[in-house]
Amino acid sequence: MTTGEIRLAIDAMGGDEGPSMAVPGLAVALTRCPNLAFEIFGDKAEIEKAIARHPELAARSNIHHTEVSIPMDAKPSQALRMGRRVSSMWQALESVKGGTASATVSAGNTGALMAMAKFCLRGMEGVDRPALAAIWPTIRGESVVLDVGANIGVDTKNLVTHALLGAAMSRAVFGIDTPKVGLLNIGVEEVKGLEEVRDAGQILKTGNFPGLRYEGFVEGDDIGKGIVDVVVTEGFSGNIALKTAEGTARQLAEYLRMSIGRTLRARIGYVLAKPAFARLRDKMDPRKINGAVFLGLNGLVIKSHGGTDEYGFASAVELAHDMVRNDLQARIALDVAALTETKELANAG
Amino acid sequence: MTTGEIRLAIDAMGGDEGPSMAVPGLAVALTRCPNLAFEIFGDKAEIEKAIARHPELAARSNIHHTEVSIPMDAKPSQALRMGRRVSSMWQALESVKGGTASATVSAGNTGALMAMAKFCLRGMEGVDRPALAAIWPTIRGESVVLDVGANIGVDTKNLVTHALLGAAMSRAVFGIDTPKVGLLNIGVEEVKGLEEVRDAGQILKTGNFPGLRYEGFVEGDDIGKGIVDVVVTEGFSGNIALKTAEGTARQLAEYLRMSIGRTLRARIGYVLAKPAFARLRDKMDPRKINGAVFLGLNGLVIKSHGGTDEYGFASAVELAHDMVRNDLQARIALDVAALTETKELANAG
Repeated sequence: MTTGEIRLAIDAMGGDEGPSMAVPGLAVALTRCPNLAFEIFGDKAEIEKAIARHPELAARSNIHHTEVSIPMDAKPSQALRMGRRVSSMWQALESVKGGTASATVSAGNTGALMAMAKFCLRGMEGVDRPALAAIWPTIRGESVVLDVGANIGVDTKNLVTHALLGAAMSRAVFGIDTPKVGLLNIGVEEVKGLEEVRDAGQILKTGNFPGLRYEGFVEGDDIGKGIVDVVVTEGFSGNIALKTAEGTARQLAEYLRMSIGRTLRARIGYVLAKPAFARLRDKMDPRKINGAVFLGLNGLVIKSHGGTDEYGFASAVELAHDMVRNDLQARIALDVAALTETKELANAG
Repeated sequence: MTTGEIRLAIDAMGGDEGPSMAVPGLAVALTRCPNLAFEIFGDKAEIEKAIARHPELAARSNIHHTEVSIPMDAKPSQALRMGRRVSSMWQALESVKGGTASATVSAGNTGALMAMAKFCLRGMEGVDRPALAAIWPTIRGESVVLDVGANIGVDTKNLVTHALLGAAMSRAVFGIDTPKVGLLNIGVEEVKGLEEVRDAGQILKTGNFPGLRYEGFVEGDDIGKGIVDVVVTEGFSGNIALKTAEGTARQLAEYLRMSIGRTLRARIGYVLAKPAFARLRDKMDPRKINGAVFLGLNGLVIKSHGGTDEYGFASAVELAHDMVRNDLQARIALDVAALTETKELANAG
């Protein structure tokens, strides 16, 4: 565990608000993790204006002016064309590549960040396809769910590798020694087309990987129960599961709002029960678990939600802090090296 | 629109409770739709015992004794081996095939029902892969989502065909003349592996199908908003989306319960707001929208949830009633025939 300074590279131009959101977010994170230091990339004038009110943050930050910001609606190919080398996003990634910073945090556009991160940092030795991992609130706490959109259609080896990546993240972020891992599957048995999920399950079962405990298949409704610490799936279904859960949460909040507003009695009841609802809202607050992580690259990259505020951005920064402090990258490298030696995977091709 | 008698074939042995749940469910459905009549398949003694308390139902039912019931945990291949010709499930399907009944309703095991239905009824002319469609509650009402688990990995033509099947169901069940149709996709653009989704979108856009209005791609969080009437996706992701939404709803109900129980004040507030919560629960009641539908077979098959009660089973029976009354099968046949004449699809192979 690193106890010294943790230096992060920040793309201050990402998100809907840019530096006016990101810089106060760094100030919040710094009060919680005083060992943080920052390399901030973006429009120098805007960053300096925002940082003027936070002298302690200013004292622990280097500001680097960049001319180009990647628009939130740019396609990955456009982003690479316009932003390679010159954008705040790229330079923040390069700061990690060069070893100045230990992780990049950006609230920028996901597709662009993914493309640039792959291009700039490249996949780790033994990882063919890096994955995007999300932290998912459950009845019991939080689980890691991956892949949530970086890869469509993965093979057996990808799924096993992603299980190891997710388990390493669970250890680093939640301190769980031997995380329980499940493969997302559907209940309808004997449907053709799931060979890679079944084969990955077989390898995880017989491979005896020291860093995880394989629990078998889980279904969509098991994620929220928190019966496993890590849920592994392919990127298309993972992204749809994540978005569907977010949509359902908003839908139920809307139902609740509509029900409460209908009678005076219900409104009085609501006022009395308000602290309870506040706790409920608090539990569902997406800002508290803001941040998806690109795993399996030569460098840590954390994606903050683009529409978040300073507290959400601070959560993403703290997530980066925790992962660096717990040597996530080194742990992943060890796990992946051990994996490539297992004969089960060699047979899977 | 058929105004006369609607005769349904009922597998009374499906579900966790068998005839003691299914028969009272039929009685409930009959009070709401008096033009219903039933061919009931299963253990004659059990059915007669359950039906004795419902003379009006008995008067409109023929009971057929079967020796074999398909267990809820049987694999599809086992179910076919043990239940072909002789089981209540098979005979209910055969009653539709022979023209005695217009639709089958079963609360039995999904995989077994799917396998038997395909084997007994076969796919309609022009439909390579029948789909399982679910009714999904939204902020605006209800949407049809398909496929939710019958097929893994579909091609362009399957997706377009499923869009037509879903649109026909939306018209028959909800009376929407030109349903809005969306293809489920993920927000991360330019990720490889989604060619069939993009190609299906192109065909739906340029094909000018009279029975639907194509609205483009939707994401997981759009389903609950009800921005389209029909959401089309491949079976693996569709099943995961459905189960994830169910799981999230249960998770939030549990959060609410935990929040409410913590203080006296919150409990008093809860009592006052109780009618509001009752409305909320009512809106979320899975029994009211019970029933997934196999579309694209030579006969209608409705799957009721196995763990439901008589009111849930009645909802599934009423769904069957509505679909028969609105000539769903004939509409689908017309749409699919029109589809096979479009040149866009011919090119897609």
